[in-house]
Amino acid sequence: MIIDCHGHYTTAPKALETWRQAQIAGIRDRAAMPRAGDLHISDDELRESIESNQLRLMKQRGIDLTIFSPRASFMAHHIGDFEVSSTWAAICNELCFRVAGLFPDRFVPAAMLPQSPGVDPATCIPELQRCVQQYGNVAINLNPDPSGGHWTSPPLSDRHWYPIYEKMVEYQIPAMIHVSTSCNACFHTTGAHYLNADTTAFMQCLTSDLFKDFPTLRFVIPHGGGAVPYHWGRFRGLAQELGKPLLKDHLLNNIFFDTCVYHQPGIDLLSRVIPVDNILFASEMIGAVRGIDPETGHPYDDTRRYIEASSMLSGSDRWKVYEGNARRVYPRLDAALQARGA
Amino acid sequence: MIIDCHGHYTTAPKALETWRQAQIAGIRDRAAMPRAGDLHISDDELRESIESNQLRLMKQRGIDLTIFSPRASFMAHHIGDFEVSSTWAAICNELCFRVAGLFPDRFVPAAMLPQSPGVDPATCIPELQRCVQQYGNVAINLNPDPSGGHWTSPPLSDRHWYPIYEKMVEYQIPAMIHVSTSCNACFHTTGAHYLNADTTAFMQCLTSDLFKDFPTLRFVIPHGGGAVPYHWGRFRGLAQELGKPLLKDHLLNNIFFDTCVYHQPGIDLLSRVIPVDNILFASEMIGAVRGIDPETGHPYDDTRRYIEASSMLSGSDRWKVYEGNARRVYPRLDAALQARGA
Repeated sequence: MIIDCHGHYTTAPKALETWRQAQIAGIRDRAAMPRAGDLHISDDELRESIESNQLRLMKQRGIDLTIFSPRASFMAHHIGDFEVSSTWAAICNELCFRVAGLFPDRFVPAAMLPQSPGVDPATCIPELQRCVQQYGNVAINLNPDPSGGHWTSPPLSDRHWYPIYEKMVEYQIPAMIHVSTSCNACFHTTGAHYLNADTTAFMQCLTSDLFKDFPTLRFVIPHGGGAVPYHWGRFRGLAQELGKPLLKDHLLNNIFFDTCVYHQPGIDLLSRVIPVDNILFASEMIGAVRGIDPETGHPYDDTRRYIEASSMLSGSDRWKVYEGNARRVYPRLDAALQARGA
Repeated sequence: MIIDCHGHYTTAPKALETWRQAQIAGIRDRAAMPRAGDLHISDDELRESIESNQLRLMKQRGIDLTIFSPRASFMAHHIGDFEVSSTWAAICNELCFRVAGLFPDRFVPAAMLPQSPGVDPATCIPELQRCVQQYGNVAINLNPDPSGGHWTSPPLSDRHWYPIYEKMVEYQIPAMIHVSTSCNACFHTTGAHYLNADTTAFMQCLTSDLFKDFPTLRFVIPHGGGAVPYHWGRFRGLAQELGKPLLKDHLLNNIFFDTCVYHQPGIDLLSRVIPVDNILFASEMIGAVRGIDPETGHPYDDTRRYIEASSMLSGSDRWKVYEGNARRVYPRLDAALQARGA
């Protein structure tokens, strides 16, 4: 089985964006604020948006299952207050739940949280609980910078975040550490902010003892870990300077990297440097990079081709990257698969 | 000849730091503000600080010449106002000039600028001119985020920065795009902020047409280009989505990457992905990562070993990385070398 641990609902029907625009307008003009119930998207519309996009490409590429969460760049936690984020997260999570219900063999949901800058993350717990208990979500996306590029929250190692971690441990769900749109003109969203956040999150963990407090907490760092594998020697050396244990003991029981790296040399480096037990297959399809690479004639984000072509990976290594690791890192996914005999 | 294009004076005599602490204290208590003339460091002290550190390691590693600039993390442009930065930059640049004078075959100076958050970069030009005309500096370090991790300046593509670029073009000097200490708790200085800034700067160039306005402007992106080479496919794909030319035409006449990547797989990726004409040898020695890599028994930052061991590079490629590219990217260095028959 080939499990893509990083897919977002980037192709939702237009009505969703229209509703969101109305909600944003409603922040300034409360009378114009739409209700959640004003949004109507039929099952047929959902089906169509998936069949012609993600599912079509999954079939083409031989991907069996996608862990599917709301569109990352649309989370935009910096917009409005907790109430705005809360309504928006509930709507987006419900849509992913419905998609998973329509294609139960193909999509398993992961939740966005109703984060809001300066607001206690504990406020996210009711939505998190709902998504796990009622919607069968197997993971969350946690935004380390709900300000959208101004980085006003404390580091992930701060007790600020502990209420979320306590629930994650209780439910045995990992968090993908994933920022949203940058509203800082310095940072291009998908070309800088995403990768910077990946590197930043890793270093926040490295300098701390977070995983002593939460030995079973699991973070998935997307986009191949940002700059981390390329600079693995730098990070090993910094950990050494700081008197920390070897990275494999200090972090690699808890941190995993996805394979959203869009060329062969990148995947080769990832698989050469990072232990195979810490690599999870993913494509973030349909996402930031949708074109055909003129150097290969294939889509940049068809990451399975790079995994297949990697000379570093044995057959059993590939099984881990495609399936085995995901079952271990996402125990609720494994349980759901086992319950249906998969 | 082996030229290291990225060395900082990280080992200056203690008196420098003591003076800086007094200056910082003087920001709140003007009566206590030291004068530049209060700092006394003898030639013997400078000589000793270099001979026992950088020069010792250069000899060990067979590095002939270092482009030498003030300690990056100590630039700390966020501290105080323009006046504070101006005095501090003048002192630091003078020290690097004196080091170059004491070891003329070994060190060539590059300047830090007296940047200050919210202050017009044009204010940096007198110091830049002094460093080029009187001190023989062959390059500058340009900080894209003088706020120290809050990213409050416009992107490098903004006209805000053009006065600096006009002088760079006039003098034929490149800028290494190098941030300083992070005072944002989210970003570890050398483990996150530096790498993030490298990636950010590259993407600011990618989304813009800066090099149409300045076809001969040259940026050196340090630390192996941050996350850029590892995600080269992503950047190629993003440029394509944005309707930009191929990266080699769009950016690689103007952007160069150094080799401050502290393990073999990273250097292998860099030399596999980035055209050899765009790679400049560097170690940032003595810098952030000073230890011995237990996996190799050699210092992490002994980057020459990785270049030597790279199977991607031919003999003539290595000549470019070590010397040829530096002579092209730093024309004033080449002129100075030629003037002395080197």
